[in-house]
Amino acid sequence: MSSAAYDNDNVFAKILRGELPSHKLYEDDETFAFMDIMPRGDGHCLVIPKKPSRNILDVEHDSLAAVMRTVQKLARAAKAAFGADGVTVQQFNEEAGGQVVFHLHVHIIPRFDGVALRPHTGEMADQAVLAEQAEKIRAAL
Amino acid sequence: MSSAAYDNDNVFAKILRGELPSHKLYEDDETFAFMDIMPRGDGHCLVIPKKPSRNILDVEHDSLAAVMRTVQKLARAAKAAFGADGVTVQQFNEEAGGQVVFHLHVHIIPRFDGVALRPHTGEMADQAVLAEQAEKIRAAL
Repeated sequence: MSSAAYDNDNVFAKILRGELPSHKLYEDDETFAFMDIMPRGDGHCLVIPKKPSRNILDVEHDSLAAVMRTVQKLARAAKAAFGADGVTVQQFNEEAGGQVVFHLHVHIIPRFDGVALRPHTGEMADQAVLAEQAEKIRAAL
Repeated sequence: MSSAAYDNDNVFAKILRGELPSHKLYEDDETFAFMDIMPRGDGHCLVIPKKPSRNILDVEHDSLAAVMRTVQKLARAAKAAFGADGVTVQQFNEEAGGQVVFHLHVHIIPRFDGVALRPHTGEMADQAVLAEQAEKIRAAL
């Protein structure tokens, strides 16, 4: 089980409730996908479950299965949208594991031969650039 | 779809067929878990589907869902076995995405406050150490 309870006021919960904006890519009954605003590469996006869960340690099986189905959809679309050579998928659990927002999320990062991941600087990307990248991914879905 | 066909002679296919040894942690009808022999941290283990698939771009939904169910099981067990503070989950697709063995696999790495991942040097860990760590994880399952 997770080491702490779910906090209803995390930023992804707020995005799900429409209290914070996001560059939405995809949505179904169980999952929601949107652009990472601190991307480590072009087209870096996130998939989250709608049902509250802190991370992989506490998520219900069905919710995790639904998330991964959407991750596959987005991995294919993001790779196609940017003509990428590969895709890196990451999922962080607890602070020591790299987690910053405590609502389960899976990172999908299109990758290109010879191009390293950008460092996680905490700097926000230009919103117009994110909007344009989101449009490309939606078109490839 | 994936950019290339599945190669039946990849090392994980050989492990599944028993043609190569592994420090086995867990097995069910659809998945198999074992120690990564080039660990980026203590307790670094892998989960793979038994059904052939190259990576997340071509895997069938049910196979991926089964893999993630086992990933959760192993993430909880590996965290408990080593008293870890968190867990990092990674899954690489195609060479540009970080993939080295072309049979879908998910990395599970126990993490500790203030301890960075070890670099991927390509050097093999001591087999006795791996065997001991595997025993710890199996005991926590």
